[in-house]
Amino acid sequence: MSKTVTVLSGLIRPLVENRLPDWVEPRFFASKEEALELAPRAEIGWFDMYDKKDMAAVITAATGLKWLNSIYAGVDGMPLDLLAQRGTVVTNGAGINAITIAEYVVMGMLTVAKGYRDVVRAQERREWLIDSPGKVELFGSKALLLGYGAIGKLIEERLKAFAVDVTVVRRSPGPNTLTPDQWRAQLGDFDWVILAVPATPETDGMIGAAELAAMQPTATLINIARGSVVDQDALVAALDTQQIASAFLDVTTPEPLPEDHPLWSLDNAHITMHLSGRAQDKMFVRSAQRFLENLDRWKNGEAVEPRVDLTLGY
Amino acid sequence: MSKTVTVLSGLIRPLVENRLPDWVEPRFFASKEEALELAPRAEIGWFDMYDKKDMAAVITAATGLKWLNSIYAGVDGMPLDLLAQRGTVVTNGAGINAITIAEYVVMGMLTVAKGYRDVVRAQERREWLIDSPGKVELFGSKALLLGYGAIGKLIEERLKAFAVDVTVVRRSPGPNTLTPDQWRAQLGDFDWVILAVPATPETDGMIGAAELAAMQPTATLINIARGSVVDQDALVAALDTQQIASAFLDVTTPEPLPEDHPLWSLDNAHITMHLSGRAQDKMFVRSAQRFLENLDRWKNGEAVEPRVDLTLGY
Repeated sequence: MSKTVTVLSGLIRPLVENRLPDWVEPRFFASKEEALELAPRAEIGWFDMYDKKDMAAVITAATGLKWLNSIYAGVDGMPLDLLAQRGTVVTNGAGINAITIAEYVVMGMLTVAKGYRDVVRAQERREWLIDSPGKVELFGSKALLLGYGAIGKLIEERLKAFAVDVTVVRRSPGPNTLTPDQWRAQLGDFDWVILAVPATPETDGMIGAAELAAMQPTATLINIARGSVVDQDALVAALDTQQIASAFLDVTTPEPLPEDHPLWSLDNAHITMHLSGRAQDKMFVRSAQRFLENLDRWKNGEAVEPRVDLTLGY
Repeated sequence: MSKTVTVLSGLIRPLVENRLPDWVEPRFFASKEEALELAPRAEIGWFDMYDKKDMAAVITAATGLKWLNSIYAGVDGMPLDLLAQRGTVVTNGAGINAITIAEYVVMGMLTVAKGYRDVVRAQERREWLIDSPGKVELFGSKALLLGYGAIGKLIEERLKAFAVDVTVVRRSPGPNTLTPDQWRAQLGDFDWVILAVPATPETDGMIGAAELAAMQPTATLINIARGSVVDQDALVAALDTQQIASAFLDVTTPEPLPEDHPLWSLDNAHITMHLSGRAQDKMFVRSAQRFLENLDRWKNGEAVEPRVDLTLGY
């Protein structure tokens, strides 16, 4: 029985080499040249490369590719039209970073609640503060969670342990649920508005001037989705006039945020430089584990996951 | 039926006045002089005053006092021997701050895990970091929790939602439990050692050079108990030589920490100035609520709580 040629980045080698099933014939590449040479024979490929153009060239050369895997959630560097035309199945890293991102959200809420940034500044000055710069408890506060995928569900689990009253937004009605046409009218009920939605045309600018005006002046906006989900000029204005209390922004428009951007100068803007997903060291381990599980599914003719919709782009 | 004279600080008045039962005859004081005048008639007293000597004088003058309440957990300003001799029941504020302290512990762990203090510093410089200064997940990490009172139990609940493997120390053996004579030998198993014990002769210096040496070099010590629970000189040495990775210290010896103390200069010492219990605004509300519930118990001849052991002093 002939084996399935599987072309993999050398970075993955130590994590998968001794765990690959018999039917896989692994070929590891250490350079663009090696990848280009191996590509035409690949039935399965894991082609992540730092240079997205190089990666696209390798994918283009992989004319027999049936399944393409990536460690990353974003697939914007891939020739999606070509892959769709060829009928290639694409799996990505969606959810791989979900745990650390959910942890980051809770950290953001706690640090805002307790005024921790001012505590850090006082430490720098060796000043013993006599009262807490923040006096909010998560306990009993109310959070609106927009986006109920892998990350949203992990955020909800954690916040419930703090006795945060979490309301989620989803199409199917249920307890503690608002539907997509209901949440805007209820924005004034929440202490926290948490954005964990994918970046799509539907979520583009979903938080604008009207939504910010509807929030409580004591409320905090948390964005770990994409900068484009928020109308950033409207947010700067809302923070500057203290229409809302603060924003914890892991993502901005653009990234990196230019040094002269007004967000940096607002003391109620907490900017964390898209680090939430990077604040862990298990990304490769988890991604390799998922790939190995998917290999079994592939062999059995089952669906590999999470599969990217090449039309939607996520 | 004669009413029970209950002498209360005027600070409490707006929170209890309209909710006191019929059998209580409330007398509110606004000064030391008023308190001293009212004290001899008091059967129940809530005498918290900023000046501990004044408070002790009022308590001494309250010769008919049967029950003394306080908003604070510490009772070191009270004439405990006199109260014991008179047979006065004393209730304190133990647990009133437990929620915010438990939240603060989780914040401390998350900020240490993600290197958030360095993120704050980068924000100050308007620098867009390209990688996370901390890459630890709480998920799957192991915590040893010393002290299993109100605060410890709330910490445990929250950490379990992060899938932290929590081991508690208590006298009665059980799952995920080490007894007081077992935990020292297991210190090397943990990523986090959390001190939530009361300050007693038994816990004085319970973490010293030997315990610090037994911890993992990647481990973090969290102290929200009292500075005296840790041999601080040994801790400074352990942090300076990176024998342990870091310490998150809400409490120190002494407080405030002098400006020239070596702890300030150690970048792996996170100092939060005994703010954990103050990082909330519900202390008075909760304390009043508990007092009102205790009044009902008192009337029914039931035990009021939490009752201070006047010999142990907590």
